Amino acid sequence: MGQRSYAILGTGAVGGFYGACLQRAGLPVHFLLRSDYAHVREHGLVIDSVAGDFHLPEVKAYSKVTAMPPCDVVIIGLKTTQNSLLASLLPPLLNEDSLVLVLQNGLGNEAEVAQIVPADRVLGGLCFICANKVGPGHIRHLGYGTVTLGQRAPGQIAAGISSSMTAIAADFRQAGLCVNLAEDLPLARWHKLVWNIPFNGLSVVLDASTRDLMAASRTLVEALMQEVVLAAGACGRTISDNFLEQMLEHTARMEPYSTSMKLDAAAGRPLELEAIFGVPLRIARQAGIELPRIAMLYDQLRFLEAQHNHTAP
Amino acid sequence: MGQRSYAILGTGAVGGFYGACLQRAGLPVHFLLRSDYAHVREHGLVIDSVAGDFHLPEVKAYSKVTAMPPCDVVIIGLKTTQNSLLASLLPPLLNEDSLVLVLQNGLGNEAEVAQIVPADRVLGGLCFICANKVGPGHIRHLGYGTVTLGQRAPGQIAAGISSSMTAIAADFRQAGLCVNLAEDLPLARWHKLVWNIPFNGLSVVLDASTRDLMAASRTLVEALMQEVVLAAGACGRTISDNFLEQMLEHTARMEPYSTSMKLDAAAGRPLELEAIFGVPLRIARQAGIELPRIAMLYDQLRFLEAQHNHTAP
Repeated sequence: MGQRSYAILGTGAVGGFYGACLQRAGLPVHFLLRSDYAHVREHGLVIDSVAGDFHLPEVKAYSKVTAMPPCDVVIIGLKTTQNSLLASLLPPLLNEDSLVLVLQNGLGNEAEVAQIVPADRVLGGLCFICANKVGPGHIRHLGYGTVTLGQRAPGQIAAGISSSMTAIAADFRQAGLCVNLAEDLPLARWHKLVWNIPFNGLSVVLDASTRDLMAASRTLVEALMQEVVLAAGACGRTISDNFLEQMLEHTARMEPYSTSMKLDAAAGRPLELEAIFGVPLRIARQAGIELPRIAMLYDQLRFLEAQHNHTAP
Repeated sequence: MGQRSYAILGTGAVGGFYGACLQRAGLPVHFLLRSDYAHVREHGLVIDSVAGDFHLPEVKAYSKVTAMPPCDVVIIGLKTTQNSLLASLLPPLLNEDSLVLVLQNGLGNEAEVAQIVPADRVLGGLCFICANKVGPGHIRHLGYGTVTLGQRAPGQIAAGISSSMTAIAADFRQAGLCVNLAEDLPLARWHKLVWNIPFNGLSVVLDASTRDLMAASRTLVEALMQEVVLAAGACGRTISDNFLEQMLEHTARMEPYSTSMKLDAAAGRPLELEAIFGVPLRIARQAGIELPRIAMLYDQLRFLEAQHNHTAP
């Protein structure tokens, strides 16, 4: 079989970085853009990366999906706050075998995609990357970059390692990226929430970097992590104390970092509150588990977002 | 018996306002001041009040307690963050019968005073007042003003209405103030915390007025109030749902108001975290009751206060 073609749905920091890496490796990549479309069509993409800067002067840029060809793999790099658009954005990009790789944070995103595409063609990818978009078509990759891939399956079961996962992993590795394969996508998602819930949430409410939080509020971070562990347990997923300890140690050693949600808040963009807080809370509540600290963080974030929308120009 | 003399320990918004009202009514009042001492000695006190402005051109102002006479009633108007000073500030002001009236927020303050003065001479006063100090010796009284008085008793029991309470109440009423007498001081303190814990805490963490919080975060306010009810219950005090409902309705109708803690935070002053959050949390924990939302609010406030101390000039 020939090379797999890729569509990048949402060319932000994440979609842009991984798409650019794939194109640099020689794969055919089609980028959907919105505000950056004209700029990128003319100037391509610029990646400033700790792994080596590069420039793609020519990329296949599109401003609407109907102009794009169906692709073998559609990578969803949109913010989860835009997922209501998927029902119209996805179908034009799909052929009978297209895979959809959801490179988003939080829970419930693969389930939304699986209402449009059969579950066995839906994959989740968890990006452990520090990257920001710093200008039109200009992405700064500050560190890390590993992607953990997992296969969606109905009923939140562990789907094991699928052939779709290994195929995409091969392309990502060809592009110089590190890939982990997760046998249990929901467990991988809960694992990531152990970090995302405390650090994304508190970084916005307390206007703090990861280092500040580790230095002055580690107890609260841990208490929030323990609530994520409780919720994961309600879904039959066990997260060890050792994993929490590793996350904490790792974050304490990291350079001070502004979380994606803090950057979104500072820029007045919508916050990914449902995927990271709302869905996990609802899943826990359905299992009869109360998560008071996470619920309070969610309430505080919704308050701040509503205030911002009121006061924004 | 002659008129009772009053010492005002801490002439801020609360101590200054009530002390000025007592002096205006003809009672002998001695004011301890710190930064405002020279100004007040020369210009007296200015009260801009919704109940009528007044000026006391001459007040008995002192910069240290050793220059003050012992008084019949010592009113503690200091912030609770300064309570470690009481052991040195109180004794010079006391004669054998002096009463001490603690006009402070939160729990544990009367217990601290009762280590210096016998419990039957310690009273608590809860001020339901909107007042700020707007300049040296200059207090703005924006609304309300009722004081609820209660008698301290060992072992957190309800002490009933003591003769000390009625004596002080008579002076306050002579000064034109509204006074309630509480038979159970701890219950009155818990009642006040039902308001202070959510509104003081959230107003700082979310940088919000009471009206904003009622409009956009009423669920969280209520959840915090319910945790105060739990803690009060652990101390044998019952707070009804009806009381919470009244507090919520009342706050929704109030003019937008910046809580005292929000003003303290904005001015870079220490926050009264122990009296309002720390002590209630410890009391609850000793009774085996977890208050996760209040604990989180306390952690967030301590984080913000520590950050402020780090970054303050």
